[in-house]
Amino acid sequence: MPGRIKAVVAHGGGPTAVINASLAGLARGVRASGGLLFGAPGGIPALLAGRFADLSMHGDSLWDEIALAPGSALGSSRQALLDGDCERIVEQFRRQEIRCFFYTGGNGSMGTALRVERCARAAGYELQVIGIPKTIDNDLLETDHSPGYGSTARFFACAARDAGQDNRSLPSPICVLEVLGRNAGWIAAATAMARHNEDDAPHLILLPEHRVSLETIAAAAERVYRRLGRVFIAVCEGQRDEQGQPFGADLDRPGSPAHELASNLGHTLARALTAKLGLRARAEKPGLVGRSCGLFVSVADRQAAHLCGLAAAGAAANGATGVMTALRREGSQPYAASTFLTPLERVAGRERLLPAEFAAASGLDVTPAFLDYLHPLTGPVEPWSQLPGVP
Amino acid sequence: MPGRIKAVVAHGGGPTAVINASLAGLARGVRASGGLLFGAPGGIPALLAGRFADLSMHGDSLWDEIALAPGSALGSSRQALLDGDCERIVEQFRRQEIRCFFYTGGNGSMGTALRVERCARAAGYELQVIGIPKTIDNDLLETDHSPGYGSTARFFACAARDAGQDNRSLPSPICVLEVLGRNAGWIAAATAMARHNEDDAPHLILLPEHRVSLETIAAAAERVYRRLGRVFIAVCEGQRDEQGQPFGADLDRPGSPAHELASNLGHTLARALTAKLGLRARAEKPGLVGRSCGLFVSVADRQAAHLCGLAAAGAAANGATGVMTALRREGSQPYAASTFLTPLERVAGRERLLPAEFAAASGLDVTPAFLDYLHPLTGPVEPWSQLPGVP
Repeated sequence: MPGRIKAVVAHGGGPTAVINASLAGLARGVRASGGLLFGAPGGIPALLAGRFADLSMHGDSLWDEIALAPGSALGSSRQALLDGDCERIVEQFRRQEIRCFFYTGGNGSMGTALRVERCARAAGYELQVIGIPKTIDNDLLETDHSPGYGSTARFFACAARDAGQDNRSLPSPICVLEVLGRNAGWIAAATAMARHNEDDAPHLILLPEHRVSLETIAAAAERVYRRLGRVFIAVCEGQRDEQGQPFGADLDRPGSPAHELASNLGHTLARALTAKLGLRARAEKPGLVGRSCGLFVSVADRQAAHLCGLAAAGAAANGATGVMTALRREGSQPYAASTFLTPLERVAGRERLLPAEFAAASGLDVTPAFLDYLHPLTGPVEPWSQLPGVP
Repeated sequence: MPGRIKAVVAHGGGPTAVINASLAGLARGVRASGGLLFGAPGGIPALLAGRFADLSMHGDSLWDEIALAPGSALGSSRQALLDGDCERIVEQFRRQEIRCFFYTGGNGSMGTALRVERCARAAGYELQVIGIPKTIDNDLLETDHSPGYGSTARFFACAARDAGQDNRSLPSPICVLEVLGRNAGWIAAATAMARHNEDDAPHLILLPEHRVSLETIAAAAERVYRRLGRVFIAVCEGQRDEQGQPFGADLDRPGSPAHELASNLGHTLARALTAKLGLRARAEKPGLVGRSCGLFVSVADRQAAHLCGLAAAGAAANGATGVMTALRREGSQPYAASTFLTPLERVAGRERLLPAEFAAASGLDVTPAFLDYLHPLTGPVEPWSQLPGVP
C-alpha cells in the first residue's frame, strides 16, 4: 500500500471458530504497513451504506483476545448483491477514499470480491481487492485448507469419538450423527479421526459426493449391527439419495433452495432406518455448535487463519489486487504452511469436492490418505482409555 | 467390610462424562479397605448371568486414565427387572460369595438397588447394598447435585454461549437449542450461564416444570426479535405445552413412552414458530454429545463423582447398607463438598424438579439464586471478547 492507504474489511457467509484470528492478523498487518483499517460491521448492508467502523485504534491485547473468540466479531451477512449494488459499494469507497477492500469468505464471497474488483476497474476507480479464505466446508480451491475447517473437523471428530464412547457404554442399535456440510464431504469425512480400533464409531461415513440409496445404507447398517449390536453413522446435512433427492429432509423455509437441506436430515434418516430395519435409532445434530465451539479450536487452524489475514495485508502493501491469500502446506508434523496469492477467478464460485482418492471404494468410508491430510489440521484426537477385560 | 469381602459394581441408565470417575474412586476405596471389586459389564444382564469381571488388579495409573474418559468403561443398561430377577441376582451373589453390591445410577436405579437389598434380606442372604449417585438430569433428591450434571450443564452453557455468538455474528431470526432433560429443567436452566450482557443468548429459557403454550412462546419470541433482530431459545426434549402434550415431537419408537419425547422437539418447535411468526428458524440438538463430551467436563463435577465412589467404599467398610452416598455442599468458591449417607427409600423413584425459587415468575427464565447454585458446579463460562464500537 503506497502511502497511508485506507482499507475496509468485511465478511461474507457463516462465521467460523477462527475467522476472528484472520481479522486480528489482518489488523496487525495493516498497522505494520502504516495503513488504516476500517470494518464494515455486518457485511454487505454496511458496505452499501458506507457504514465503516475504525479498527485502527485497537491494540495487540484486544486483538489477542478477539483472535480467540469464535463467531465473527465484525459480523457477517448472506445478502446477495443485486444489480447496481457493486456500483454503490464502489461509490461509497470513492467518497471515503477507501483504496483497498479485504473480503473474508468462501467461494461465493470470492465471487462477490471479484465483482467488486471488476466494477471498480470499469468505473476507473483504483481499488485493490484481496480475498481472505474462510469456510468450514473446506471447499475452496487452490488453498491447502480453508481456515475454519480444521476446527469444525476437530469438533465433529471429537463428537463422534465421545458419542461413540457413550453408545458403546449403552448400545443404541442405530445412532446417527448429522454433521455440517452440503455438497462436499470434508466434514463428514473428518469423523473418521474418531476411530482408533476396528470397532470404533463411526462405522459408516456417508459422503455427499457419493449418492446412496436408503437400501444400501440399511444393508450396510444391518451388517454392522449384527457384528457389534450397534451402528454409528455420520452423515452431512446435504446427503442425497441415489436419485439425487435430499434425504427426506424437511424444508425449514419451503421454496428456498439455500435452506432446503439445512434442517433435519439425520433425524429423518434415523426414522427411515427404524422403519426399514425394525431397530431403534436416534440422531444427534450439533449443528452450528460445531462451527462456533471455542473449546474445540484447532491451534493449527487458528494459526493458519491468522497467517491468511496477515498475508492479505502484506499483499495489499505490495500492490496486489484481484487475488486471494491461500495456504501451501510446508510440513505436516507439526502443520506448517506458507501463503501465496491466487487469482480470485480461480476460486470464485468454484467448489472443491472431496477428491476420489480420499473416499473408500464403498463410498461409505474414507482412505488412509485422507487421514494423512487431515491429522495435522485438527491435531490429535486421542482415544479414551478402556477397561481391559470388559467387553 | 469386615474381612476380605467380595463386592460387585454395576451401572444403570445413561452414562455421563464423569461416571468413570466414580468407578475409579470406588475401586481405590475398596482396595484401600482390603476388599475385592468385580464389575458387572453392561449392567443388569451381567448381574442376572453372574458374569463378573475382576477389577481388583488394575493400578492407579489405569484408574487415573479411566477417570478422565466419558461414557461408562463398565457399560450400562436400561433393562428393567422382571419378576424373579431380583431373586436371580441374589442367587448369583450367593453362588459367588458376593457380600456387597454397589449400584451407580439415578432415581430409577436407586429403586433397583432398593429392590435387590430387600430381596436379599427376604432370602436371608447377608448383602450390603450401596447406591452411588449419577445422573445428568440432577433430579436425585437429598444430594447437593448429581455427579454428571455439572459437566452436562457446562457443555450446554458453552453451547448456548458459542452458538449465541455465532447467531449474533450472522443473525438468524429464531435459533432453538434443544438440550437434554425430560421432566426436570436443570439442564435447560444451565444455559443461563451463557449470558454476560443483557442481550446475550439465550433470550428465552423454557422449563418443563412450566407448561407453556406455543402462543406464549411465539409472543415472547416476537418481542425479543423486534428488539434485537434475533431470538435464541433454550428448550429441553421433555417440554410440554399448556395441555401437557409433548411439543409436537415425533415419536422415534411409536408407542414407547420412554422414548416418545426423545427425538426432535427443538426442530418441531422451530417449524411451529416459523409457521406462526413468518420468521425463519433453525434448531440444533447436540443430544448425547452433551453428556459424553470429554473436553467439557467440569473439574468440580469430576471430583465430586470420584468422592461419591470413594465414600461408597468407605460406607461398605463401615457396614452400611440400603443407603446412597450423597453430596453436602461445604463451600462454593471453589466448590467443596463432603459426603453423607441417605436411605435409598428417600431417593428411589423420586424426582427433584427445579424448585420454584430457581424459576423466574415468567416461567421463561431462571433466577439469580439458581446461578449462585450452579456456578460452582460448572466453573466459569467466560464471555468472549467483543470489538468495541461494532454493533
